[in-house]
Amino acid sequence: MATLPTLAVVGATGAVGTVMCDLLSSRKNVWGEIRLIASPRSAGQTRMCRGEELTVQALRAEAFDGVDVAMFDVPDEVSAQWAPIAVSRGAVAVDNSAAFRTDRDVPLVVPEINPEQVRNRPKGIIANANCTTLTMIIAVAPLHREYGLRELVLASYQAVSGAGQVGVDTLHDQLSKIAGDRVLGSRPGNVRQAVGDDLGPFPAPMALNVVPWAGSLRDGGWSSEELKLRNESRKILGLPDLKVSATCVRVSVVTGHSVAVHAVFGTEVDAEGAREALRNAPGVILVDDPAAGEFPMPIDAVGTDPSWVGRIRRSIDDPRALDLFVTGDNLRKGAALNTAQIAELLAAEFIAAR
Amino acid sequence: MATLPTLAVVGATGAVGTVMCDLLSSRKNVWGEIRLIASPRSAGQTRMCRGEELTVQALRAEAFDGVDVAMFDVPDEVSAQWAPIAVSRGAVAVDNSAAFRTDRDVPLVVPEINPEQVRNRPKGIIANANCTTLTMIIAVAPLHREYGLRELVLASYQAVSGAGQVGVDTLHDQLSKIAGDRVLGSRPGNVRQAVGDDLGPFPAPMALNVVPWAGSLRDGGWSSEELKLRNESRKILGLPDLKVSATCVRVSVVTGHSVAVHAVFGTEVDAEGAREALRNAPGVILVDDPAAGEFPMPIDAVGTDPSWVGRIRRSIDDPRALDLFVTGDNLRKGAALNTAQIAELLAAEFIAAR
Repeated sequence: MATLPTLAVVGATGAVGTVMCDLLSSRKNVWGEIRLIASPRSAGQTRMCRGEELTVQALRAEAFDGVDVAMFDVPDEVSAQWAPIAVSRGAVAVDNSAAFRTDRDVPLVVPEINPEQVRNRPKGIIANANCTTLTMIIAVAPLHREYGLRELVLASYQAVSGAGQVGVDTLHDQLSKIAGDRVLGSRPGNVRQAVGDDLGPFPAPMALNVVPWAGSLRDGGWSSEELKLRNESRKILGLPDLKVSATCVRVSVVTGHSVAVHAVFGTEVDAEGAREALRNAPGVILVDDPAAGEFPMPIDAVGTDPSWVGRIRRSIDDPRALDLFVTGDNLRKGAALNTAQIAELLAAEFIAAR
Repeated sequence: MATLPTLAVVGATGAVGTVMCDLLSSRKNVWGEIRLIASPRSAGQTRMCRGEELTVQALRAEAFDGVDVAMFDVPDEVSAQWAPIAVSRGAVAVDNSAAFRTDRDVPLVVPEINPEQVRNRPKGIIANANCTTLTMIIAVAPLHREYGLRELVLASYQAVSGAGQVGVDTLHDQLSKIAGDRVLGSRPGNVRQAVGDDLGPFPAPMALNVVPWAGSLRDGGWSSEELKLRNESRKILGLPDLKVSATCVRVSVVTGHSVAVHAVFGTEVDAEGAREALRNAPGVILVDDPAAGEFPMPIDAVGTDPSWVGRIRRSIDDPRALDLFVTGDNLRKGAALNTAQIAELLAAEFIAAR
């Protein structure tokens, strides 16, 4: 019997890395050794993975020796530096940062949509899409196959864990400060006063607020998160001319990104046909019965694998347009799960080749 | 000197009625007598208005005798019954419910946009628009005048006070229950469990959640709130063929409705031209400097009169489209303020006629 491939998890102690260890413990095991890697600050800590207690190693070139697949859940600049080093040591890198997503020589893979692209990796690097894009595209791709997508207008409702564990801690701290004061949110300025100066990674208080900003400022007043939705949707679907307008908004939710989607197609659509396409689509759960209180919501989607899709309506004024609402766990399908799925495609390739 | 007209406030003890008393106390006084009216249950209570303590009267036909303008901030069915009675007793009714908004013989007036329509009232009734429509339309109308509006794609972020004081109490109760438990929102089902069965007027927990539903179910899976945005935008702007698709979502905010707007026009647009049009528009405040952390947010807009507009971008793939974000106080411009402004137009008419 062939040896199972060796996996490295870089960024193993972060918010996504923690979910990754949970996933690796619960999914079908295709790995031999699993090596946890993090910054020197976290080295020496232990984490449970597949029922074994593993010691976290410091990030250095030698840590990749003998590794077949190296997953990166680290900031862009760390991936930009270290993914090529992992490749030079013989690994294939699966990167969850934005460092390589728009690189023409790096495929952007969603296993339910374009799994064949994993083999197209001249740099030895495969990119994982942004969490908001992943949540949305899983629901949009089956509709594209049915009707031919032309345009997306998107508005997001993004959870604080998209900004990492510090985002979660910040929201919980703020909620503790405001609890019990029943006039907060009803008078100007009083939420800012109650929350104080500690905004964590956000530009404004998250408690009792919505913040129409995520990422960094780009040309034309767009945020980097909004441009990611456009660029990554085009690349994943192979539609370089797809029209995309997105507004990204952070909301008071711990985990679970939601997106209101207005999708315009090349042919006429119907809501029941769209539901049928989504019922049969991989990675999707259809929850679309408003009369019964069934629609996609973060408190239900958190901790689950699929994108929850509902509120499917044909636009009244455009027979080629659908409106829908999608929610998914931004730490799972939006990050760790999709990375794990890509790595599993690679594991199958290695096992078949040995 | 002419006598000042008499005003009745019907629904004086509700969430909007309370804001109305504050507004009447702070705006230029154009009223003689002010009469507070509510359900028999609330009759006999007292409220401060213009520095006077007023006793709330029970709703009955005789309460409208001698009234020139009667404002209604009550449920649809109460308005449907009582606004015509107020008219039969000689008053002009300004109604904030949905009962008359789509009636061809009832104008839907936003004083900054179509003030001339107050005179076109064959039934003696003038309707006030829905709170989400008002917040958004104040920002969209000046852009329509500049570029000629063709289509709106809208996603809302609606505050709980849109469901009345019971909505606010429900959110505060839920926030008290979840405060201090730092894993809530990170695991499936635990928010539902912590919040318990008391969902107030909402179909799901509001704390740490977004709920893609507001209003009642209509044909094609649309909610009544989504159809209001379409029907009322068309009527206020006088554009019977305007294409509108809206998704209405309730968020964990006390007061302040927000809307992500994708607006398509008949001519090419530019973001700086749009900003200039909005800078000079009545009822609008432009907050559009993301680098300085300036964008419209409910915690800043609450308690203020204007619609806060920002995040103005020209769509990358359509030179005729703008994306923007709007926030406004749903109890003020979204309800009481617009009603008060309509009533003041009527007061000026009565004073001029006497």
